Amino acid sequence: MNQSEKFMKEAIDLSIDNIDRGGGPFGAVIVKDGKIVAAAANSVTNDNDPTAHAEVNAIRKASKILNTFNLSDCEIYTSCEPCPMCLGAIYWSGIKTVYYGNTKKDAAKIEFDDQFIYDELDKPIHDRHVKFIPLMRSEAQKAFVKWASTENKTEY
Amino acid sequence: MNQSEKFMKEAIDLSIDNIDRGGGPFGAVIVKDGKIVAAAANSVTNDNDPTAHAEVNAIRKASKILNTFNLSDCEIYTSCEPCPMCLGAIYWSGIKTVYYGNTKKDAAKIEFDDQFIYDELDKPIHDRHVKFIPLMRSEAQKAFVKWASTENKTEY
Repeated sequence: MNQSEKFMKEAIDLSIDNIDRGGGPFGAVIVKDGKIVAAAANSVTNDNDPTAHAEVNAIRKASKILNTFNLSDCEIYTSCEPCPMCLGAIYWSGIKTVYYGNTKKDAAKIEFDDQFIYDELDKPIHDRHVKFIPLMRSEAQKAFVKWASTENKTEY
Repeated sequence: MNQSEKFMKEAIDLSIDNIDRGGGPFGAVIVKDGKIVAAAANSVTNDNDPTAHAEVNAIRKASKILNTFNLSDCEIYTSCEPCPMCLGAIYWSGIKTVYYGNTKKDAAKIEFDDQFIYDELDKPIHDRHVKFIPLMRSEAQKAFVKWASTENKTEY
C-alpha cells in the first residue's frame, strides 16, 4: 500500500465502521503535509444534521484544528465521490485534490441519489422541484453596498 | 409588510449587522408554521469554518432545535440566492421553498463568485480545476454492500 492508499483505507474503514454506529456508509479524511489532520464519518442521523456528510464534517474539523478557513494546502480522501453540497464545501475550503472511492453511481444504487441534486442545480431556478421565490432584492442589496464600502474586512 | 416580507427583513437585517461583527454580508432564517425557528449569519471567518454560510448555519440550528434532520415542513428565507453548497444542504434538509433577496449575479459583483462553482459542477470530473482521483473503488464498495444488507438502519 502506498501513502495515498493508506489514507483512503482510513476513509473507507470509517465508512464501514460508521454503519455499526447507526450512521451512513461514508467516511473522509483530510491530509496536510503527508499527515491526517482530521477524520470524520457521516453523522446526519446521529447528530440530526442534514449537512453532516463525512466531507463537510472532516472540513469543519480540519479548519478548527488548523485554525483557518483556508485548507488550500490540504487534500481530501473520501470513501465516495462528493455530492453537490460537499463539492461546494470543498471548493470554498480551497482543497485542490479529491481522492474518492465509490462513484456517485454506486451511491445511487443504494438510494443515495446525489444525481437528483446535480440535475436540479442545472435547471433554471423556476423549473426546480424546490420553489425559488425572489423577494425584496433592493432591500437585500444594502448589505452588499455596505460590504463593498467596508475597509479592513476579512475576505474569503 | 406581509409575513414573508417580515421574515425576509430578518434575514436581511442579519446580513447587514453581520458585517459589523466581522462576518460576511449574508443572513438566513428558517420558518415553520409561520414562526422563525432559527436565524443565522455567515460565520466563515469568525468561526474558521468554510462551510459556515448563513443557510448551512440556519439549517444546522433548526435541525438541532427541532431535533430532526428532516426540515421538509420548513421554509428558508435567505438574503442571497444560495451557492451550490447551500443549495445541496437545502435539498438534503428537505426544505421545499426558498425565498431569496440578492441574486448570485449580485454576489459575483462583490467578489463572491458562486458561478465558478456552478460551472465546475457542470464539467466532467476530469476537466475541473480541482483534481479528482479515483482510488480503491472495490474496497470502498464494501461499505455500500454492508449498508444494503443492514436492517434497522435509519435512512435519510
